[in-house]
Formats: sequence, structure tokens, C-alpha cells
Amino acid sequence: MKYKTEGLFHCRMHSGIFLKSEKIYVFPQRIKIMDISKLFSIKILPDGKIIRVPKNYNLRQALLENGLNIDSSCGGAGTCGRCRVRIASGKVHAVPGKKISKREMEKGFILSCSAEVKGDIEVIIPQVKKRKAKIEAGLQELPEGKIYKSIDKTEIAKTKINPWILKEKITVEKPTIFYSTSDLFRLKKSILEKTGVKDIKVPLNILKNLPFLLRENNWEVMVVLNRETGTLIKIQPASERVSFYGLALDIGTTTLAMHLVDLLTSEIAGSASEYNPQIKYGEDIINRIVYSLKKDGLEELHDSVIGAINELILKLLKDSGVSGDDVSVMMVSGNSTMIHLFYGVPPKFIREEPYVTVANKFLNVSAGELGIKYIGEAEVYSIEGVASYLGGDITSGVLATNLSGRKKLSLFLDLGTNGELVVGNSQWMIGCSCSAGPAFEGGGVKCGVRAVEGAIEKVVITEKDYRCSYEVIGEERPVGICGSGLIDLLGEMYLRGVIDRKGKFNKDIGNSYLRFEDEEYRYIVAERKDSAAEKDIFITEVDINNLIRAKAAVYSGIKTLLEEVDLNIADIDRVFLAGGLGKNINVQSAIVIGMLPDIDLNRYSFLGNTSVTGAYLCLLSNEKYRLTEKIANKITYLELSVNMKFMDRYIAGLFLPNTDLKDFPTVERLLYSL
Amino acid sequence: MKYKTEGLFHCRMHSGIFLKSEKIYVFPQRIKIMDISKLFSIKILPDGKIIRVPKNYNLRQALLENGLNIDSSCGGAGTCGRCRVRIASGKVHAVPGKKISKREMEKGFILSCSAEVKGDIEVIIPQVKKRKAKIEAGLQELPEGKIYKSIDKTEIAKTKINPWILKEKITVEKPTIFYSTSDLFRLKKSILEKTGVKDIKVPLNILKNLPFLLRENNWEVMVVLNRETGTLIKIQPASERVSFYGLALDIGTTTLAMHLVDLLTSEIAGSASEYNPQIKYGEDIINRIVYSLKKDGLEELHDSVIGAINELILKLLKDSGVSGDDVSVMMVSGNSTMIHLFYGVPPKFIREEPYVTVANKFLNVSAGELGIKYIGEAEVYSIEGVASYLGGDITSGVLATNLSGRKKLSLFLDLGTNGELVVGNSQWMIGCSCSAGPAFEGGGVKCGVRAVEGAIEKVVITEKDYRCSYEVIGEERPVGICGSGLIDLLGEMYLRGVIDRKGKFNKDIGNSYLRFEDEEYRYIVAERKDSAAEKDIFITEVDINNLIRAKAAVYSGIKTLLEEVDLNIADIDRVFLAGGLGKNINVQSAIVIGMLPDIDLNRYSFLGNTSVTGAYLCLLSNEKYRLTEKIANKITYLELSVNMKFMDRYIAGLFLPNTDLKDFPTVERLLYSL
Repeated sequence: MKYKTEGLFHCRMHSGIFLKSEKIYVFPQRIKIMDISKLFSIKILPDGKIIRVPKNYNLRQALLENGLNIDSSCGGAGTCGRCRVRIASGKVHAVPGKKISKREMEKGFILSCSAEVKGDIEVIIPQVKKRKAKIEAGLQELPEGKIYKSIDKTEIAKTKINPWILKEKITVEKPTIFYSTSDLFRLKKSILEKTGVKDIKVPLNILKNLPFLLRENNWEVMVVLNRETGTLIKIQPASERVSFYGLALDIGTTTLAMHLVDLLTSEIAGSASEYNPQIKYGEDIINRIVYSLKKDGLEELHDSVIGAINELILKLLKDSGVSGDDVSVMMVSGNSTMIHLFYGVPPKFIREEPYVTVANKFLNVSAGELGIKYIGEAEVYSIEGVASYLGGDITSGVLATNLSGRKKLSLFLDLGTNGELVVGNSQWMIGCSCSAGPAFEGGGVKCGVRAVEGAIEKVVITEKDYRCSYEVIGEERPVGICGSGLIDLLGEMYLRGVIDRKGKFNKDIGNSYLRFEDEEYRYIVAERKDSAAEKDIFITEVDINNLIRAKAAVYSGIKTLLEEVDLNIADIDRVFLAGGLGKNINVQSAIVIGMLPDIDLNRYSFLGNTSVTGAYLCLLSNEKYRLTEKIANKITYLELSVNMKFMDRYIAGLFLPNTDLKDFPTVERLLYSL
Repeated sequence: MKYKTEGLFHCRMHSGIFLKSEKIYVFPQRIKIMDISKLFSIKILPDGKIIRVPKNYNLRQALLENGLNIDSSCGGAGTCGRCRVRIASGKVHAVPGKKISKREMEKGFILSCSAEVKGDIEVIIPQVKKRKAKIEAGLQELPEGKIYKSIDKTEIAKTKINPWILKEKITVEKPTIFYSTSDLFRLKKSILEKTGVKDIKVPLNILKNLPFLLRENNWEVMVVLNRETGTLIKIQPASERVSFYGLALDIGTTTLAMHLVDLLTSEIAGSASEYNPQIKYGEDIINRIVYSLKKDGLEELHDSVIGAINELILKLLKDSGVSGDDVSVMMVSGNSTMIHLFYGVPPKFIREEPYVTVANKFLNVSAGELGIKYIGEAEVYSIEGVASYLGGDITSGVLATNLSGRKKLSLFLDLGTNGELVVGNSQWMIGCSCSAGPAFEGGGVKCGVRAVEGAIEKVVITEKDYRCSYEVIGEERPVGICGSGLIDLLGEMYLRGVIDRKGKFNKDIGNSYLRFEDEEYRYIVAERKDSAAEKDIFITEVDINNLIRAKAAVYSGIKTLLEEVDLNIADIDRVFLAGGLGKNINVQSAIVIGMLPDIDLNRYSFLGNTSVTGAYLCLLSNEKYRLTEKIANKITYLELSVNMKFMDRYIAGLFLPNTDLKDFPTVERLLYSL
């Protein structure tokens, strides 16, 4: 093959940025020589946007580079089947595989990651409506009667505000010929006298304006100071209104959540959340780490999350009318991999035995240093993590739940894309991560989806004919089943006898919704005619198996932690459920399938995103921030991957609800009563 | 006048940078509309370079903007007479004034600052050869027998080296599945165990490579650490050679001096010095401050000195073969105005009563933040000053002379463009600045020059016919008289009776070298035929008056300080002479004119640039750096401008050697013996 090098663009591109020349669009992924003698057009439907690519260009790559949001959890390896698009016209070279059937391909469906463009084409990209962005912080919209008192609004209002940022009106002594020390010296002296803060650091940019500001304001000024570092953040005329804000951010594997906090009143001036755009490089942590090993992969992942953060900041500032210059601190929480990617530090060894992070605690840096825009030189702090798979988001959650301050035994369970748990009280804490896998986020389940609009989130099976009734997020026609729906479904199937204790279908009960199609048994949850995509929404034995393994991982994690300290399920005084799944889960169903401890439902608290709540508390009080360091150092980390007891417990958990029924008295009663 | 705006360049220019279009050179000083319909050429002789300017453009500005080094101490105000050039052909509009006579103008000489270009011209720029760059640090080339022991090479070799920078070979514990703390944690632990340094700060750029470096080198690495801040500067394979260097820099009003120091051996790997290019904006501190008030003036002054520093660094690195990445610290010393300009902080209020600095002590910043190149992110420190007119250069000098460590009384005298003094011992110190003016640098003296090649630096008057014999720097034909030459000349004139005690010429002694020309009496030092510029080199009564005022300021400063603490000239155990003038001065002559105390000559030490020597010591030992902070805080500053005793002393000093002769027994004896 001959390459035409003339007119080639040799440049770096970030995702979503696209270089245009006079007539053509080229895709030089880094410096890459391509045959640009033939360029084909790709028309995106339904939008009608047209892009142009060289012959044989990878279709998924072309779409991603052009800013189109193509779902994929395997990062383009052809194993997740999520980057499916439909070719409306034109020629591509695509290969069938496990994740796409011949019949589907006959209808024009292909996996874009496995397709090469061979001519002008028209592509239909499935439109997944996002659930309306809504922050799921513990302090808002808690289900009635399920609010754990220590974290509700009243409690936060009572939290002693001892913020990082201090504002103080200062009168600086006027110099005379006999007292002609420097402006800086007299300023520092006045601040020390008024606030007690020593070793005040005044950056050059403030010094440059200091002499004029002091004289123009008759030596009366308002100073804004970082009490923690002694850094003078701002100095302004005493008469001007002072405002300063902070940002609390949780970087979840799936979702970013941000609060804009008025540090003078401790009120939340605005909240926003958005999907983590890194999803397109891989749905879970492992796939992200794998992507980071590619050339420039780490940089792409970093740029991707920073880009989304910038958008959230811009939105919050715009909506609230707050000036970015008034934002002085940003407090970031997230799991270890997300935090590594946030700082641009390689997460490679998080994935390799013995699973160590580069750092659990990072130095504070300026926003600009990380590429964060709009908030000037605000200082960025992050919450200390415990280990590779027990990150700062968990430390933050423990702070938010006050687990480390309670005398009685608590279990903290963060069920997001990963499952992390901490058991303990004010004396001790032990934590672990149970690699639940992405099943509850819809991964590894054919009709599984994230909690988007159109997701089935509740399921009840009619006793007589085994028909499913369901509730859909956003009251749309269903597109798939999300985590809470899957847990409900699994519980219902077990209770109603659709499946047995091993998760196998009972084929002899006259279940007309159990159908054999494409060489597998499928239990139909929503019929083709009712679904948004006009295809059946169903569950298979393979799906069920994946779900059972996920729930077994969570429960055996809990049991292993308790056994490690010679305690039992019955000793748990309170369960704090956090995370995306933790907010919407039907605990009753989760108990039925043996995922959560079979204890009084009133002992469960549903807290949503405790990671961002903890970050918010740290913004309000630097003592709380110091407390997170203590928490992180106090939690003993248990590595389950080499724990033999965990393995035994896990295997026992591969039955419904468990091999060992004595911990599930309620489930036993339910089974007999039905 | 009509302006043609088409094709105009609207841009900012730094000095020496010049915008070229296809055929013309334009001079838009900031955004300025000029008539560019007529462009005239300026041919620079002897080089032959051609530049083009619009009609009526200021000639000095055109030359400066084109990178030509035009001398001027008044910043273009037309009062110093130093920007003189000769028009070889063509038309300019120039006005005669005090600093240029009609006769000179008839010969084509003009002041370029007062000239507008009216047509194509040819200009001859006087070529002043610079004295060969040679650093004048206390530790090198001291005149034999005049070395003060505590500061010679031997002593510095004995100085306990306790550098900022620490290198240590570290073995980091390998992680296991049961000890899976972060790489950072284990690194910090090993460093703490080996060095005792806590709170180690590891910047992001090092973190990003840390995991790979540790594993590739089997957990054995060499770390380079800033002991002071705990910042990890570098980490590299244990097997690689470690080298780290520091830069010691003195920013003088006239000269920059720099040492490149090997921080492992404490040896000086190279030294360089260069004129401070800010000279073109004004020769002394006051003129620089005035220039800084102009629009963008501060930025120009800052850029100017940083540019020169970059050149010095580049030269030192090139000559020594040292890599800029190995330079970790830069220690800067200088007077308060120079340090303000170095940091880009406005020096405005240094000039206005009550004369306060913005700061005497600045936070350490990274080199890049100031625009310093070639040395990566080396940290830049500066030495704390005492007051507006007693800067870090004096603190540094006090450190270098060990004045603050001596029990006996010392007088430290820094005679550069300004004169600063400190009197004291290990118990107390008092200091002041005597506004000597630029007379000893050649300012305010018609034939005065700086200590360049061709400067007359020693003068003896032949008794019989009052003819001067002289020595010239570089054995060239003379171009003028520098500071030490002027002091010699004044002393000789007084001793030989050429002038009386008031500094007036004795016209009745038959002195054939005293001539009346251009409406003034001139005492000829070198005849026209012998001089490089083919004009007489002479001194006038006005010049003498300026010199007497300068020497009176120095001596009355010394007396006032001593009286303040009830001490006398005779109590002085040692005089440390520092600064450009302090190195080359003939002390005997300085005593004769009543500038320096009339004490045993053996009590004088000549130390050259003590500012850079102090900075060098601070590089070797951070204890020395901490000591400078103590020194700066210990020196009591005396403001002479409002001191009535100083005024009395000053007026008494306007005679030769002084109104009060009792402090000058040697001079009296000399006068009688002649």
C-alpha cells in the first residue's frame, strides 16, 4: 500500500478535538501515517453530521475522535458488545463474534470497534437518554424515615465550621520615617495579632499590588487566608463584599458529583453531576488501567476527566452567578485509580500483584497545574486513601457516616461500580474491597444497563403466570434492567420458583415467559412490543450466574471482615449503604438473594454519595480534613484475593441465599410462607 | 499631520527585540500611531548596520529598541549627557543644552535622547570597551597581604558544609501482598530512617515516574532532597552519578556577578559577571525607580535583568559542561530596589518618604516563575534585607565578613553605586545608607567613567609642573577617569595645592595644566593627543564639588553611626571595604580627602563583592542562610535623611579633609611635610 504523505497532519489530538483542513478531516492518532488518497464520508444518523476518514479506518475510533459518545466497557477489545451501531447504508468490513450474532449483522448491526470503513457509509448510533443529572448526596432527598440522624441537614448545620479559609478585616500600621519596616512585615504583624496565624506566605502576585492597595484603602483591608498553609489567598478593600467558595468533588468510576459551597455560610450554592467520560475507555477500573498502559493512554484519561470537571465547574459557576476568582479550595474524593488518573499518575501497579498505589495521599497543587480552569489558582486537595482498592472515597464515606465516631458496631457498604466495605467503631476499623464486578451496573448481563432513563429498576413477578411487572426510571418504555432491578428480579425469581437455589431455571413449572432462543433459555421481563428498542428484555442463566457471583462477593466480604474480628452478623448495630446502587436498592430483595445481612430493616440507612458528602464536610472544617488522614491510617486493609476464608465464604455464597441458611432466618420464613 | 494606519504593527516589544516586516522596520512602542508614510534609514557606524524609522522618531529610542547599548544615567531626560553620538551625515533636529556645547554640536556631536530623525542619517556610536568580565568575589585574587583571614579560601574550606541539598542512597522496602502500602509511603519511610527528614514533599512530576524507577532499579535509588523544605528534588538510579549545583548571584545596580557552585564539593565550578543591562534605563536606583513608574516600565526592568541572568547562566553552564537539570538552588543577593525589580514587585515607595519596601524577605519561588531559563524548576531564594536602602546585599556582606561574629568593633563599608555601612560586633549592629550619589561611578563628573578598559584608575601629580601621571585599566589610551582615579586625583590635587580646602582651584601657582575653556576652569589630566577620543580628559570645580559631596556623605555616615552608639573613629578595630570601588580604592588617598577614617592602613581589608560571597556561603550551608535572617533582623537601621547630626557632620565634611581636623592626624602631618 502506498501512502501519500503530502498534506498530512502530524499532530497530537485530544479526544473530541478535531483538526480541520480546507476540505478534509484527518485522523492522525498521534503521529501516524495513513493513506489519505481516499477519504470516505460517514454520515451520522439521526443528526446528519458528516465526518471523513481514510480507507480502513476503525469506525469506533473515528466516532470517538469526533466527540461521539460510544459506549464500551472493554476499551475496544471486542468483548463487551456495547459499541454496537447500525449501518444504514454503505460498506464496512466487520466480523461476527460472541457479542453479535449473524442475524443481527444481517439487520445492519455491527460492533463499531471491529469494523473498518470501506466506503461512504451512514451510521445510526443508538441514543441512550441519560438520567437527568441529579446529585445523590446524603444530605438531600433521603427517603423518608430512612434518614440516619447523624448526617442529615440539621446535623451538618450543627457541625462546627472551622474552615480552611479565614477572612479578616485588618488595619495595617502606617509607616513613618522612624518605623519604616516593609509593607509585608506590617501586614503580617497585623494578621498575626488579629488571627494568631504565623508564617504567613504572601505570593508574588499579591505582593505586586500590595503597596498600592494598602495606600489606596487607607491601610484598611480585608484578607482571605488559608489557615492551614498560612497562604494569603486574596487581599481587597475592606469595604468590598467578600465571598469565597469551595468545590467538593467526588470522582466516581461512573459518575462525577460536585457541590459548590459558600464557605462563609456553609450552604451549598449549587450541585451538579455528570457521567465520567472515561467510561468510553472502559467501564470499570481494570479496563481504565489497561487503557492507561497504551501510548498516551494515561494522558487521555487524565484529560478526559479534567475536561468533565471543567464542564461541571463552568455549569455551577454559571448557574449560581459565582465568580471563579472567589473559589479558593477544591476538595476531591475518589477511589485510588480515579485519583491517580485525576493527578495523571500511572495506576499500572494497582492492577498487578501485590496491588500497590503510587500514593494514597497527594500534595496539594494549584488547579491550573492539573489543567483545571475557571477557578484561578485555587488549591486542590484530595482525601487520603487506604489502599489500591480502598480509596479516599471510602475514607470520605467513613467520615460522612461518623462510623469512626460511633461506639457501636457499624458496617459501611459502598456499592457503586466497585463494592467496598468497612466494619468497625470508634476503637478500630477494618476494610476491604470485594471485586463484585460490574454486574450491578449492568455489565456482564445481556440486557443490563446503568440507572439511565428507561431502566427497569423494580420488578415483581405475578405468582400465577410468572409474568413480570416492573417500574421504569423516567416512566419511559424500558431499554434494559439496572442494578436495583436485577436484584429485585433475582430475589423474585428465587422466591417465586422461576430459578432454583443454584440459579438454574426451573423448566417444568409451566413458565410461558421462559423461552429458548439463540441457543439459550431466556426469561422475558419485558416483551419486544413494550420495549423501546423493540426487542425482548430478558435474563439468561449466564446473566444470573454473573449476578450470583457478584452478590456472593459482597456478602462473603462482609462475613470475612466480621470473622477477622470474631464478630457475627447479629453484632451489627447499623448498616450504612452508600453509592449509586446503595441509594436505590430494595434491601428486602438483597437479603433474599443473600447479598446483604438478614437483620432488621430499620438498621439500614441509605445515604447515596457519601464520598462527596465527606468532601463537603472537609471543606467546612479543616479539622474534619485532618480527621480523614487519621481515618485512612486507622483502617486495617484486608486483601481478599489471597484470603482463604474469603474463598470458602465466596463459594458458600454461590447459592441462593447462601449454602449456610442459618444467617438468613427471614428468607427461610419467606420461602415457607409462599 | 496625517497618519497612515495601514500596515501598522500593533504590538509590545521588549528591549532588543525588533519586529521586521517584508521591507521595513517599524518601532511601535506599545500601541502608538506613527506616520509611516516616510521611513528614514539610520546607518550605524562603524558596523554599517541599517535600521529604518518613521520621521521625527527619537534617535535614542530607535537605537535602544534596536539592541544598541546606549549609555545614559538619566533615562533619556537630557540631563546626564551620556547618550552622546556623532552624526556623520544627514539631518536630525537636536537642541543644545548644558550637557553639550555648541562647539561640540558643530562637530556633529549630539545627545541622542534630544534628537529627532529628519532624514536618512549615518551615526557613529562611541565604542566603550568593557573591562574583561572578571568576578570580584572576596575569595579570589585578593591583594597580597591585605586578605582578612576569616574569609579566605582556607576559611571557606573549613566552613562546615551543611547544604540545603542532601543526596542519599535509599533502599525502599519491596511491597508484598501483606505489606502493600503505597510506593510513596515506603519511599518516605526509608528516607526518614536514613536522613531524619520528616514531611517529605514529592511533587507530581516525580510521582509520575516513581513506580517505574523503583521497580527498574530493584528498589535502590538515589534521592536528592531539599533539607529545608523537605521537597524531593530528584530521584534517580542508585548507580548513576549524582551531581547537583547551585548558583550564587549578586544583582548590583551596575554589575551582576554569578558563581556556579558544585554543592557536593563546595567548589566554584565557574564564575561570570556582566553589566546590569538596566543601566540603559537609568544609572542609579532612583532613575530606575522613576522608570518603573512608566507604563510597562516595571516589566521592562524585570525582563531586562532576567535576560542578563539567563545569559550568565547559559554561559556558566556552557563553559563548565554542567547540565541545567543538575542546578537545584539559586541564591540571590542584591539591594532592595534590585531585588524588587528581580521579582517584578514595584519599588515605587522605596523612593517616597517614609521610604518603605514592599518586602525585605520574599518567598522562595521556582526559577520558571520568574522567567529564569535553563535550570528547570530550581528553587530561587533571596537574602533578607534590612530596609529600603540597606538591602540583602549588605546582610550578605555582613555574613561574608563575619562582622556579626566578631567581638571587636568592625566597620563594613560597601562602596558601589550606593554607599552602605554597618558598624557593630557580635552584640549589636547599626547600619545606614549614605546617598553618596554616582560620582564615584563617574556620574556628575564630566570626564567620569565606570571602571571600564581605558579608565584612568591611578593618578600622581608631578610636584614641579602639576602634570598628572596616570595608570589606565587595560593599558589602553585613556577614555575618562573612574572612581578610584577620581579619589586619587582629588587627594593629589589637595596635597599638591592644585585646589584649596574648599575644592577651589588655586589659580596663582603657575599651573599650566589649569586652562579656561568653554567658560570654565579645567584641570587637564590627560591631553587631547594622548586620549582615545582625541579630547582633553579634565576635571572642573563643579566635578570636584560633586566628589566632595559624595565623600562627605560617606564619612559623615560613618561618624553619625559611631556617635549614635557613643564610639569614636579610634574604636574601630577593622574596616571591611567591599563593592566595586572598595576593591580598587587607594585608601591613603581616600583618607587624605576625608572619605575614610584616618586609622592604621593595616586595619583595612579589601574584599570585593561580599554580596556574592555571602550568597555562596548560604548555598553551602542552610545554617548560614538562617543566619542572614538573624543578621537582617539584628541590624538597627538609621535613616540619615532626617538625622540632624548627620546634616551637621555632612556640612563639616564639605571641606578637605574635614572642617574638624583632629580626626585626621596623618593628613595634617602629610600637609606639613610637603
